[in-house]
Amino acid sequence: MNGANALIRTFVDSGVDVCFMNPGTSEMHFVHALDDVPEMRSVLALFEGVATGAADGYARMADRPAAVLLHLGPGLGNGLANLHNARRAKTPVVNVVGDHATYHAACDAPLQSDIASIARGVSSWIRTSRSPETVANDGAEAVAAAHGPPGQVATLILPADVCWLDSPGPVAPAARTTPAAVPDDRIEAAAAALRSDEPAALLLGGTTLRAETIRVAGGIAEATGAKLLAETFPARLERGAGIPAVDRIAYLAEFAQMQLDGLRHLVVVDAASPVSFFAYPDKASDLLPEGCTLHVLASPEEDAVGALRSLADELGAAPSTSAAALQRPDRPTGALTAETMAQALGVVLPEGAVVVDEGNTAGLFASGLTAGAPPHDWLCLTGGSIGYGAPAATGAAIAAGDRKVLNLEADGSAMYTLQSLWTQAREGLDVTTVILNNGSYAVLNMELDRVGAGTAGPRAKEMLDIPGLDFVALAAGMGVEATRATTAEEFTSQLERALATEGPALVEAVLPSTL
Amino acid sequence: MNGANALIRTFVDSGVDVCFMNPGTSEMHFVHALDDVPEMRSVLALFEGVATGAADGYARMADRPAAVLLHLGPGLGNGLANLHNARRAKTPVVNVVGDHATYHAACDAPLQSDIASIARGVSSWIRTSRSPETVANDGAEAVAAAHGPPGQVATLILPADVCWLDSPGPVAPAARTTPAAVPDDRIEAAAAALRSDEPAALLLGGTTLRAETIRVAGGIAEATGAKLLAETFPARLERGAGIPAVDRIAYLAEFAQMQLDGLRHLVVVDAASPVSFFAYPDKASDLLPEGCTLHVLASPEEDAVGALRSLADELGAAPSTSAAALQRPDRPTGALTAETMAQALGVVLPEGAVVVDEGNTAGLFASGLTAGAPPHDWLCLTGGSIGYGAPAATGAAIAAGDRKVLNLEADGSAMYTLQSLWTQAREGLDVTTVILNNGSYAVLNMELDRVGAGTAGPRAKEMLDIPGLDFVALAAGMGVEATRATTAEEFTSQLERALATEGPALVEAVLPSTL
Repeated sequence: MNGANALIRTFVDSGVDVCFMNPGTSEMHFVHALDDVPEMRSVLALFEGVATGAADGYARMADRPAAVLLHLGPGLGNGLANLHNARRAKTPVVNVVGDHATYHAACDAPLQSDIASIARGVSSWIRTSRSPETVANDGAEAVAAAHGPPGQVATLILPADVCWLDSPGPVAPAARTTPAAVPDDRIEAAAAALRSDEPAALLLGGTTLRAETIRVAGGIAEATGAKLLAETFPARLERGAGIPAVDRIAYLAEFAQMQLDGLRHLVVVDAASPVSFFAYPDKASDLLPEGCTLHVLASPEEDAVGALRSLADELGAAPSTSAAALQRPDRPTGALTAETMAQALGVVLPEGAVVVDEGNTAGLFASGLTAGAPPHDWLCLTGGSIGYGAPAATGAAIAAGDRKVLNLEADGSAMYTLQSLWTQAREGLDVTTVILNNGSYAVLNMELDRVGAGTAGPRAKEMLDIPGLDFVALAAGMGVEATRATTAEEFTSQLERALATEGPALVEAVLPSTL
Repeated sequence: MNGANALIRTFVDSGVDVCFMNPGTSEMHFVHALDDVPEMRSVLALFEGVATGAADGYARMADRPAAVLLHLGPGLGNGLANLHNARRAKTPVVNVVGDHATYHAACDAPLQSDIASIARGVSSWIRTSRSPETVANDGAEAVAAAHGPPGQVATLILPADVCWLDSPGPVAPAARTTPAAVPDDRIEAAAAALRSDEPAALLLGGTTLRAETIRVAGGIAEATGAKLLAETFPARLERGAGIPAVDRIAYLAEFAQMQLDGLRHLVVVDAASPVSFFAYPDKASDLLPEGCTLHVLASPEEDAVGALRSLADELGAAPSTSAAALQRPDRPTGALTAETMAQALGVVLPEGAVVVDEGNTAGLFASGLTAGAPPHDWLCLTGGSIGYGAPAATGAAIAAGDRKVLNLEADGSAMYTLQSLWTQAREGLDVTTVILNNGSYAVLNMELDRVGAGTAGPRAKEMLDIPGLDFVALAAGMGVEATRATTAEEFTSQLERALATEGPALVEAVLPSTL
């Protein structure tokens, strides 16, 4: 058994049985070994950003990592943006990057590159596997490292000769780290802050945004009068009818400041203290209000869910029984706009749907108008690097089994990783993609005004306009059936039809160029 | 005048007047300033790899750098693969990467990342501009650094506040380094090696592959009986009728070894000693034959062209007057194959064409069957990171003025950066793209056999097959007119028509899945 074979078997034994890949010559022994380990599902992507984003989406839904297989430094570069998003989502990913044979590095062949340097920013665990004797153990430790806590991108650099040489075979799974329990004094400090008469809020993030934990937090909020908030872009938020509603902190700092205004205590649970997404002249970067004390109940490497339960016990707060009511909006009519598009989503969103939201400005109303839809999951762009949606939907569909995946995708963002559609078609994945085509990087048009540079000229504006994209043709070119909607009625019925079909489908929503 | 404005003016004054960009919020002041400096042409790309590859193609034809504008670490990640190719091509690129405002880094906002760490592998000159007082000077030095010698990717990290704050204005161009003259003893040593009766070859690379210098080298070869060779993947090779033919060293090590077999002296001029592209079990990585002495006539930072002239003087060798004859193949008929496709290229290739070759296995015959076409340039994938062709063709078209650009593009490679077509359409660039669609990563199918892993199973094979791509639809989706050819006759006439049209066009050549 060669090193590649031992590594893949070890992955499977450690619970990693999907590999999203875009391999090259140095990975051919890994690819060859796939036939010897049928338990490993291999999914080909035509671009590395699809593979890494799919691994992110997969693990968010499966709660365990997938592997990724990339080709040397440039392949890692192409996958980096979505690994950045995975890092920000605290998603576990086993990131295997093939490399030249150990002895070949001295040749400085054209594809020679410093893989570890590229990986460093997205990956706190990086190891180069040096020998077929150790490669299986390296793989087992990569899986354990990816699990965290918190979940992280574990990068295993895999030289070609380590794959092709004889190995002693697979190893048992490596021990995983248990999340550290939060000490009592921190529970008590948070309880004291929430018991005080001063305005307080509980800010949830990461692992705490599943329905059951939200109910616990909701109970705390009800018992103490605290506000219940969630981070701006959760990796995965369970929401909809029957689950207490949580206000996400707004993307625009001006609105976030309104949400946080007057607070004297902010208790954060697996979430960072709120900051502005970008810096702007004469605007604050740190959004914690003056005079507000930050209380870290649990940090990402700790047992945040357990800490919330302990806090509820300390406060004598039962889980919340209040929840969002089942309430769908009316079927929209007339012009297709960001608002009627979102209204249609609220009308049709099926129970158990997984919404992968990269709608950006055009998706602004989507969250609000689906708040009363049957329970569903909402996955967000955690790291701000656009082009995550279509890949993440691809991976989520593989993890989510029978659940419908709906990818709400802005036109500009779609174009970074549209190759995802080909993988969706090949794998027959049940993903409905809604392209919000307003012919513009609309978020940048808004930001161009917000940065205080004065009225923009025609050339600046031209750099933010992206007219002429025909997503029906693009989808057809990759084997996905697509339709185009120009009215609210068309959109609603086309979306219904797409969701009723098995396999991938795409609906292009033609929207006005401004909100 | 703010920092952004001062920087752009300085670029223009330093001879950099094209900027390929995919900006985000932190670059909005840069974008805003474009209207104040109309001499800077700004070209939008829908994906960063298009922008960086376009800058590579542009500079190969213009002999001066373009600027690139990218959005923080993830944007740089997306652009990295083609910067890797640019680095291997020794192409000058001014790589501007926008960053958060200097004081915002402390917030660890979602897009915060270690840009310098990502840039390190592709860029030996990296500077973070710290203040609007110095930004113009930083820009001038970036341009000088990009020029080299050798040409390189100079990365300027540009915090948003450095752009938006008041600056003292532009500065004069920075002094450039002159290539160092090669010392006489090295000229004499090379002359002695070539004068000996032992088998010798002259291996040309980098700056020495323009027609005039090839004639000088050809004269040396004729005078001494040395073989005339070129590196495997030249950044830019002038060739065709009227120019001495130079044999490129083969990609496959087995064939390269045949070319080099028996040599006792190898004189390299702005080229590396030959190595195998990848490592294989039981095959050599270093291809310099045993008993062959390597003579470095000129390294990339030296005046290689001057050194060849001195060597010719030392040897009393006049420039070669022999050259490839004008000779086009017959118009092909029958089945469309890699060979008849290449034959058609030989029939129609116009004088002065710029061929951007990412044909990979399907393009194997293209070079041979165009060897007697009217003089043209041939641009190769220098770094092995696929997805360079369509972007490089985009940039080359901007640099090349009235010359026709022909992008020979393999299907698999095309899918990494196909967004290039949108930029070609928007800018009305005269690029004819030929997609070689064999439904396969054919080079990997070949490599899978070569790596000695035994017969591949169905799952391995499946990872190398990419059926179902319709490039006519994909091109239409981005505004480029396209046709599909299934016979040699169709292909030849469609290619003729595409080349006769102004503006971008695409011809999809449907090829058998194996050579």
